[in-house]
Amino acid sequence: MGILKLTEDHERFRLQVREYLAREVVPHTMEWEEAHIVPKEAWRKLGEAGYLCPCIAKEYGGPGLDFRYTVIITEEMAAIGQAGLAAMLHSDVVVPYINTYGTEEQKKKYLPGCVSGEIITAVAMTEPGAGSDVGGLEATAEEDGDEIVINGVKTFISNGINCDLVVLAARNPEIADKHAGVSLYLVEDGTPGFTRGKHLDKMGMHSQDTAELFFSNCRIPKENILGQKGHGFLMLMEKLQQERLMSAIANVAGAENALKWAVAYAKETMVDGKPLSKSQAVKFKLAEIATEVSMNRVFLDHLIEEHIAGKDVTALTMMSKFASSEMMNTQLADIIDIFGEYGLLESGPIAKGFRDSRITTIFAGTTEIMKTIIAKSMGL
Amino acid sequence: MGILKLTEDHERFRLQVREYLAREVVPHTMEWEEAHIVPKEAWRKLGEAGYLCPCIAKEYGGPGLDFRYTVIITEEMAAIGQAGLAAMLHSDVVVPYINTYGTEEQKKKYLPGCVSGEIITAVAMTEPGAGSDVGGLEATAEEDGDEIVINGVKTFISNGINCDLVVLAARNPEIADKHAGVSLYLVEDGTPGFTRGKHLDKMGMHSQDTAELFFSNCRIPKENILGQKGHGFLMLMEKLQQERLMSAIANVAGAENALKWAVAYAKETMVDGKPLSKSQAVKFKLAEIATEVSMNRVFLDHLIEEHIAGKDVTALTMMSKFASSEMMNTQLADIIDIFGEYGLLESGPIAKGFRDSRITTIFAGTTEIMKTIIAKSMGL
Amino acid sequence: MGILKLTEDHERFRLQVREYLAREVVPHTMEWEEAHIVPKEAWRKLGEAGYLCPCIAKEYGGPGLDFRYTVIITEEMAAIGQAGLAAMLHSDVVVPYINTYGTEEQKKKYLPGCVSGEIITAVAMTEPGAGSDVGGLEATAEEDGDEIVINGVKTFISNGINCDLVVLAARNPEIADKHAGVSLYLVEDGTPGFTRGKHLDKMGMHSQDTAELFFSNCRIPKENILGQKGHGFLMLMEKLQQERLMSAIANVAGAENALKWAVAYAKETMVDGKPLSKSQAVKFKLAEIATEVSMNRVFLDHLIEEHIAGKDVTALTMMSKFASSEMMNTQLADIIDIFGEYGLLESGPIAKGFRDSRITTIFAGTTEIMKTIIAKSMGL
Amino acid sequence: MGILKLTEDHERFRLQVREYLAREVVPHTMEWEEAHIVPKEAWRKLGEAGYLCPCIAKEYGGPGLDFRYTVIITEEMAAIGQAGLAAMLHSDVVVPYINTYGTEEQKKKYLPGCVSGEIITAVAMTEPGAGSDVGGLEATAEEDGDEIVINGVKTFISNGINCDLVVLAARNPEIADKHAGVSLYLVEDGTPGFTRGKHLDKMGMHSQDTAELFFSNCRIPKENILGQKGHGFLMLMEKLQQERLMSAIANVAGAENALKWAVAYAKETMVDGKPLSKSQAVKFKLAEIATEVSMNRVFLDHLIEEHIAGKDVTALTMMSKFASSEMMNTQLADIIDIFGEYGLLESGPIAKGFRDSRITTIFAGTTEIMKTIIAKSMGL
Repeated sequence: MGILKLTEDHERFRLQVREYLAREVVPHTMEWEEAHIVPKEAWRKLGEAGYLCPCIAKEYGGPGLDFRYTVIITEEMAAIGQAGLAAMLHSDVVVPYINTYGTEEQKKKYLPGCVSGEIITAVAMTEPGAGSDVGGLEATAEEDGDEIVINGVKTFISNGINCDLVVLAARNPEIADKHAGVSLYLVEDGTPGFTRGKHLDKMGMHSQDTAELFFSNCRIPKENILGQKGHGFLMLMEKLQQERLMSAIANVAGAENALKWAVAYAKETMVDGKPLSKSQAVKFKLAEIATEVSMNRVFLDHLIEEHIAGKDVTALTMMSKFASSEMMNTQLADIIDIFGEYGLLESGPIAKGFRDSRITTIFAGTTEIMKTIIAKSMGL
Repeated sequence: MGILKLTEDHERFRLQVREYLAREVVPHTMEWEEAHIVPKEAWRKLGEAGYLCPCIAKEYGGPGLDFRYTVIITEEMAAIGQAGLAAMLHSDVVVPYINTYGTEEQKKKYLPGCVSGEIITAVAMTEPGAGSDVGGLEATAEEDGDEIVINGVKTFISNGINCDLVVLAARNPEIADKHAGVSLYLVEDGTPGFTRGKHLDKMGMHSQDTAELFFSNCRIPKENILGQKGHGFLMLMEKLQQERLMSAIANVAGAENALKWAVAYAKETMVDGKPLSKSQAVKFKLAEIATEVSMNRVFLDHLIEEHIAGKDVTALTMMSKFASSEMMNTQLADIIDIFGEYGLLESGPIAKGFRDSRITTIFAGTTEIMKTIIAKSMGL
Repeated sequence: MGILKLTEDHERFRLQVREYLAREVVPHTMEWEEAHIVPKEAWRKLGEAGYLCPCIAKEYGGPGLDFRYTVIITEEMAAIGQAGLAAMLHSDVVVPYINTYGTEEQKKKYLPGCVSGEIITAVAMTEPGAGSDVGGLEATAEEDGDEIVINGVKTFISNGINCDLVVLAARNPEIADKHAGVSLYLVEDGTPGFTRGKHLDKMGMHSQDTAELFFSNCRIPKENILGQKGHGFLMLMEKLQQERLMSAIANVAGAENALKWAVAYAKETMVDGKPLSKSQAVKFKLAEIATEVSMNRVFLDHLIEEHIAGKDVTALTMMSKFASSEMMNTQLADIIDIFGEYGLLESGPIAKGFRDSRITTIFAGTTEIMKTIIAKSMGL
Repeated sequence: MGILKLTEDHERFRLQVREYLAREVVPHTMEWEEAHIVPKEAWRKLGEAGYLCPCIAKEYGGPGLDFRYTVIITEEMAAIGQAGLAAMLHSDVVVPYINTYGTEEQKKKYLPGCVSGEIITAVAMTEPGAGSDVGGLEATAEEDGDEIVINGVKTFISNGINCDLVVLAARNPEIADKHAGVSLYLVEDGTPGFTRGKHLDKMGMHSQDTAELFFSNCRIPKENILGQKGHGFLMLMEKLQQERLMSAIANVAGAENALKWAVAYAKETMVDGKPLSKSQAVKFKLAEIATEVSMNRVFLDHLIEEHIAGKDVTALTMMSKFASSEMMNTQLADIIDIFGEYGLLESGPIAKGFRDSRITTIFAGTTEIMKTIIAKSMGL
């Protein structure tokens, strides 16, 4: 519909990504689902192909492309069901912390690996019992000479098993204020005192590794503070717009895809000698889904362009994230009803899509958090 | 949000319209509601002020403005609850038939009056029992020498009492094909054999006159055929995109307005010593409504620009019409719950808004018709 | 379905009520709607016929029938759209206060008139700005010798114009505790200082008079305290189960009636040569409505018998009230869509039903209040 | 709430079942889920304990208990998430075909084994592409002397791997009429020409084996016709009320259980220093769920008693099946949102409940089929 300002270069890039995923990723999807993890090699190949961190500047090893390239990668990944490669989280959520707030040394040290796939990143904020409430963080970071000593537990960490570098939020126990004490830290894999906990067995997104992380007298050098001390909360807030925009992009692309399956199925499947799509109930349901998908698409594309233009569209982005995730869940439940028992078979794409999408109303901020922020923006 | 390409001239025009309505229309709203009709004088004043048919070219007495001007008028009319002035129907639905399909003579004869408000128009398609199904038309138009003899009954005709000129759909009884026999005719008020039936008492939109029209051996000259003979159905189809776009524009503007009332009320009203807006249920409900309104707004503005650019966005327009009307109804029901018993008082704006909006899922094509068209566009 | 234990006497009584309403009430419905009030004479005739306060014992002038008789009257009144006769409010909500808490003198003085229709009652609790929150009452009742001096404003009082006797909730300004200070008082029409305010113009229930009541140094004798001093809040609480049960009874009966209209209309109306009921969308919608109505009916009938058996089914009654009122509103909106523009005509029953039912989620405790009580009963 | 007429014997039985399941079944749940099947031994132990086919008369090896005992078993099985033991399907759906329509010889031969768990049964109706449409059956049964030759494919057969005896629907290819040609046949495991196909990998109910069954020139003796020849369709219809009632029983019990988890979790989980249950959004959502669950419970218990009394409550049973399954799905999705990421962990009960319940709107007749039957009963 032409809201997103895509050039021929963008379109060519999309075809390349699509072709790459079909060839290098899709054939392994089932295997990775069963293994409950993606081999690190797959990340490196993705990096080699140029599909990690497309926005990172050339001086740090990246291609320095505009934000629409990352939108394209995210959409194409969503169209194949992510395949456990949380590339979006890495490229568009975690790495941007380093890119925006990192020192020249940090950027030189880490960004090239992030682009090449040598370094897989994770962000460790959530703690057991604390949800996404930064104010309630219990992990501590205490200065001790030239070092910082970290103690605490993080949970529900995506890329938790595979990650080579963790952006960690922890509080200085000496600062009473809930927010002012929080800083971000870079913790490398292999640092003594940093261990992985359980690989969490989730209902969906089987091939994406999610884990607990433990920090027990884990010592990192002071240079590994990321950004200004005590600005952890602010930095997290500043990146929320993009984080939630990325979620919305994946949701809408995923929903478009599921709609395509359902339309094709309804056209092909014969019931009592005529296509299922001729049932008014099925036809109307698909028309309703198409309406919601189209509205979410136009809304999102508009927000992407506003985001690229540097505008503050925080509240609208929360709307897009919340609406697209709720839509996706409702829609997939409805689509299963259209497929009937076939929709429940793990050999088809619908069951996986349904299981995988259930988390979308929860991660990157729950629907309740979205509504709270929207209400606040309305002065309520 | 800047999707609609509005210049400073547009914005200035909007303020003028708003100021005009506040001064000349709003004070009479209650009176017209009770009278169940708007005096023809009000139409003429609106025409004088330049707010009827803004798109009509100068050579036919109009100002020749772009489509965004008519969008602005529609939005401002919606914001005051229409006040029974079906200007949108006249300017953007009926008059365009004459403007697009009329002969030079017809345009010279009628358009200046349409612009000035001397001629109020109506479109007579719906018949008792036939719904909006053009294929089932029973009104007949038979040629008799230089004249055409019309017989039939039309119902639910907006502007039915006030109209000076009717664009009428009727079939040639000699043509068997349901669609090929339908032509459009111009019937002037005062033509012998053309009478008004009951002024229909509707639940909402009290001040807008809706009536039955009777045609009994009503003779009009052959020159009053509008457009090509037998092309009635095609012409009606061609104009549907704009007709339904106009409905969506009014719906979204109406919904935005209702949301404003609700937000203001929730902030001002104290319950147990704190604003109603601090109730999480109220806050979340308003955030949900704001989300739906915003998504409908962005979607609609995008379609308006596509429409102006001459693109065929029929299916998307059906989506916008259907989604915005369903939203408006749900939203106003929810808002009444927020207002409580105050929301039900006819002295406030909510009850009227609720009653008035109920028709939006029905007129200009029901939600079922919208879904049918959307499904068809998807190949279902 | 036989949950309600109805004898042949009950069934005979139902037919008598139905016949009476058809003959004496229905022919006046439109006239009363337009007058926005029911003549007092209609109440007296209803009393004469034996259809007011059926549960009042013979010694106080009543017939001493069981609760199922009042259920039957309520259902039959609901089936004709209430006709503005808030008999349920009088017989089953207000008069029970006198019957349960009144002294022998009060009962002897007032009950016979309540049964005969000579005395129409109202309950005055709600105040401007206070909603249904008893804790926030501002009306005061001060003792002055043998008299009580009442000051305050009450609003949204059903039977506000017609009432001859008001059960009023007011607080003793000398008692700080929000609840402990509230008592109930009996105020007769004609008492100096008691005046009626505006006859409120509501969206629905036009023929039922709703008004503001003003009390300005209104003096009543001490004997007119109803029940124990300071027990106002407790008495109101004790009667809530029955009050809300009555609402649910009216809702379910009203919904059953609306469903009947819709089914009949769908069967009779021909679209494109076949009954509207053959449209799958219409058919499924009516099946869904029937399902909800049936579930509400069985649930309610079970609660009625539990109520008669003297059990505390408060939380379940809140569920029934909330669910039936929400159902009724949703259902009537859907039914209007089935009727199309015909559903919006005030000459038919649907538009009135839709307007009238809108208040059901609000009066006798809003849906929010219902959910709050249910949640409390769950220990939340 | 005392609608179901349960004696002390029933209540004692319930505790025994509960205790048995906790001891003998629950400890194996995870193991069976992973194995994607329940060992046959578990069926035999269940039979030994007396929990299979409680309604079968003593002369056929059963305990001859009333229907409420099977209701109790079904509820207790639902409360532990079924554990892959499709005992309800066996005891209350398949075995009743033999019990009702079998000859004395068939009953003597098979029923004792069905009661003891030596014989696990399955019903084979569904075919690839045909859904639950009996009229479209393609499996054939041709008489050849004293034998019947069966050919065809059945799919989505619960107990497909474990079953020892199959009640099979097939058509006589010589009879043109879609319904009149269908008969039921008893096919024993081990009969040449009867093989199992794929063990289907479903999104939910992992431990319940579902499979394709193949019949290729499979010869059974003529004595294995079940019931009257050509009455297959009628017999299937006659048993639908009970089959769908059983589904509703499992749904409502499952939903009650899920609500208990959610209420407990909301009370225990602290967020920002107060229980999650104090969030109005959570509180209201749980009150809404409790309302729906209570209404479904009362409706169902009423239907169970009507069913026991031998009444035809087919349409109401369809309502109960459809409403309870839709409720269960919506409710579990909402409950996951309350649990947040914890709700998605396979180590907790919610994710499994959510996955498992997805099929309830589909099996034993889809929601569309339920609505179709309800509509038919309304004359639509």
